Amino acid sequence: MAAIISSSDRSTNPRPSGAGPADRSGAAPAAGTRPAADAAGPRVDAERLWDSLMTLARIGATPKGGVRRLTLTDLDRQGRDLVVGWLREAGCEIRIDGIGNVFGIRPGRRGNGFDANGAPAPDPADRPVAIGSHVDTQPSGGKFDGNYGVLAGLEVIRAMNDAGAQTERPVAVAIWTNEEGTRFTPVMMGSGVYCEAFTLEHCLAQRDRDGISVGEALAQIGYAGRDVAPRFAAYFEPHIEQGPVLERERMTIGAVEGALGQRWFDVTVTGQDAHAGPTPIEMRRDALLAASRLVIEVRRIAAESPDYARATVGQMFVHPNSRNVIPGRVEFSVDMRNASETTLAAMVEQLRASASLIAAQDGVEVAMEQIVHFPPCAFEPALVAGIEGDARALGLPVMRLASGAGHDAVYVARTCPTAMIFVPCEGGISHNEIESATPEDLGAGCAVLLRSVLTAAG
Amino acid sequence: MAAIISSSDRSTNPRPSGAGPADRSGAAPAAGTRPAADAAGPRVDAERLWDSLMTLARIGATPKGGVRRLTLTDLDRQGRDLVVGWLREAGCEIRIDGIGNVFGIRPGRRGNGFDANGAPAPDPADRPVAIGSHVDTQPSGGKFDGNYGVLAGLEVIRAMNDAGAQTERPVAVAIWTNEEGTRFTPVMMGSGVYCEAFTLEHCLAQRDRDGISVGEALAQIGYAGRDVAPRFAAYFEPHIEQGPVLERERMTIGAVEGALGQRWFDVTVTGQDAHAGPTPIEMRRDALLAASRLVIEVRRIAAESPDYARATVGQMFVHPNSRNVIPGRVEFSVDMRNASETTLAAMVEQLRASASLIAAQDGVEVAMEQIVHFPPCAFEPALVAGIEGDARALGLPVMRLASGAGHDAVYVARTCPTAMIFVPCEGGISHNEIESATPEDLGAGCAVLLRSVLTAAG
Repeated sequence: MAAIISSSDRSTNPRPSGAGPADRSGAAPAAGTRPAADAAGPRVDAERLWDSLMTLARIGATPKGGVRRLTLTDLDRQGRDLVVGWLREAGCEIRIDGIGNVFGIRPGRRGNGFDANGAPAPDPADRPVAIGSHVDTQPSGGKFDGNYGVLAGLEVIRAMNDAGAQTERPVAVAIWTNEEGTRFTPVMMGSGVYCEAFTLEHCLAQRDRDGISVGEALAQIGYAGRDVAPRFAAYFEPHIEQGPVLERERMTIGAVEGALGQRWFDVTVTGQDAHAGPTPIEMRRDALLAASRLVIEVRRIAAESPDYARATVGQMFVHPNSRNVIPGRVEFSVDMRNASETTLAAMVEQLRASASLIAAQDGVEVAMEQIVHFPPCAFEPALVAGIEGDARALGLPVMRLASGAGHDAVYVARTCPTAMIFVPCEGGISHNEIESATPEDLGAGCAVLLRSVLTAAG
Repeated sequence: MAAIISSSDRSTNPRPSGAGPADRSGAAPAAGTRPAADAAGPRVDAERLWDSLMTLARIGATPKGGVRRLTLTDLDRQGRDLVVGWLREAGCEIRIDGIGNVFGIRPGRRGNGFDANGAPAPDPADRPVAIGSHVDTQPSGGKFDGNYGVLAGLEVIRAMNDAGAQTERPVAVAIWTNEEGTRFTPVMMGSGVYCEAFTLEHCLAQRDRDGISVGEALAQIGYAGRDVAPRFAAYFEPHIEQGPVLERERMTIGAVEGALGQRWFDVTVTGQDAHAGPTPIEMRRDALLAASRLVIEVRRIAAESPDYARATVGQMFVHPNSRNVIPGRVEFSVDMRNASETTLAAMVEQLRASASLIAAQDGVEVAMEQIVHFPPCAFEPALVAGIEGDARALGLPVMRLASGAGHDAVYVARTCPTAMIFVPCEGGISHNEIESATPEDLGAGCAVLLRSVLTAAG
């Protein structure tokens, strides 16, 4: 089934429908034509998935119903231990790599994804299809962010076990270390090391505010692994949307086409502070007025740009910030996102042009410094089309969308064909203790995942 | 000379030129026509004035060349003692009232402004012409704000002494307590009690952050007076402009027509915070975007309004103020000022209309709470015209302007005909240790003051 997972040989795709270029138009393949998803095959148990989520959510549970389980703390260990225990019970081999990423592998007919020497299988046809996400949370996080992806993977394996299903390829569940990045930077550390965005040594040396390094924390919780990580044939990451689109559109499944590129800036506007009373309007060099014009330009640029354009001023500091003093300096952030690197660059150029114009008009200086640049990530079109088709085959309302936020999948996509499945979360709210999703939607997402995994794993 | 100091009998004004309605056109009276300002009369000594300013500035001097002499501290006592000593040496009687205002009175032919029982003279013709300001400073204040007005008054008396000049009315120098309002609120406390804007009891009970009351602090520094304050025939307050207009216009003297009315608001914009990445532009309720539109409206309203309109957003707080979170709440201040109460009210109505419109357009709520309302204060036209004429008679470039900031004169104007004389300060900068003015400009302002006082005092 290499055709599904490699865009280079899509023409040889043996899957009866769906994965060819025609599928990328968004047209649904005929229901029931995908071999591994017939009525007699494995079925997910939405209640069991929900119970697993609720059990895991007890570790680090907060009084407001959320979860605080910071990466590489003892609570993270408890969470990992619970899930690893479940994976072992489900017959998975457990491998842990140097950054603490956990891989639970259910072997296929073609083995466990490794050769006799313990190195990743040299033949891509032998590599596992993986499902993953993370179990660390934000300081005031919810029950679903990350945890859903990992436990949906577990549920897929349990469902296959229940049905006695066997696949050609192995199926793996990945738990990536430190996705949230609130205790240690950088964010998406485990998947970043996996795809060689960062070196292992660099990440092991990162320290938290108490001076504890990642390496020390991994050793303390018993997850300083020495295993080689598997290479994947394909990677799926189910996740709550963390946005409002599916809910607004009354859709159950989001077939995620990719993740938006991001460019972040620090902007400083320098004018002249002066007394609000004695200084006539025409003599002012008001940094907040110029900053306000730029905030409006940021919005205009996003509203007028294609390709899922988003742009936000989230942070602003006004100096001296006194009621009766004209602000002399304002610092603010700009976060621009787009699915197209070209459009994103054009958005940034428009912002620079607006900044120059406003600086000249208002007699201020505007300095822009780029502090983050993530290029856009396009997921594997064949997998995206497959998810869309699987959702339709299950009678689930589905739409394509983009992930506005970063996920481990964005890094994993550098190493293998990748896609994400989104399910709705209430009000689009995430990174919050009130984060909420329904057992039905979570189960539906898992059912789509199961079909796509079975197809990819053969 | 009551005609000069009461707008009700301007038609009987005996002054040869200047105080009639024609004078308010800004036309200069013929030089030398004002009786008390002939070449043989008193002349100010600009160097002596400068020396006094520099001597006073040593008390509380800061390393950066400014002054920190907070009201009713021991440094304030030292400053007061120095000036009181100078006033006594110049032959003044010293009276101190219950809020610690100091009055140094140089008697005229008609007495010292009090009757035999120590009450203010019942006949307005017997009341003193006063000059005043304050000697307390901002925490990082300059050498000239306030101090100039008091020491210009001292210099007028010294100049009259040097020339052996005698006036009909007494001439008084007033030092008002706690003009700055940084240690104790309200600001302009001494002049506010004098004009009955506040009660003495209320002000004596005000406490600083250490719990010390105004009454206790006055007693500690020996300025808890028991004298009755004089009532004035007229009041002059010379001051640095604290704005950039005179410097820009290359003018030495500002004949201040009045002080702008002020209305201050707390504005809260409430939208919905959400993740910057996953939330499409059209689904946002961005409180900072709406606030930015309002900042621009505030500027537009001021730019389009007459009567010395000014409007400023000086303070802004963004919540949650995180780079990748759309702001859900923004709080900001609005400070609107105008010489006309009617125009000021119209500005506020325009702001309310803009707020309603933007709230509806952006899907946010906007709440506006008024927290300060000072009505505009028009100074006595005859005195303003007199200052203008005196400046022209001395060959000094003069223009009319408004005081954008509050001053003791605004309160004193409730009790008697009042005017202010502005001189330039470098870059318009005040309330700052680098506040600067030249000996020549300060001397020029004092020379105009002397002429106007001599005219008013007869």
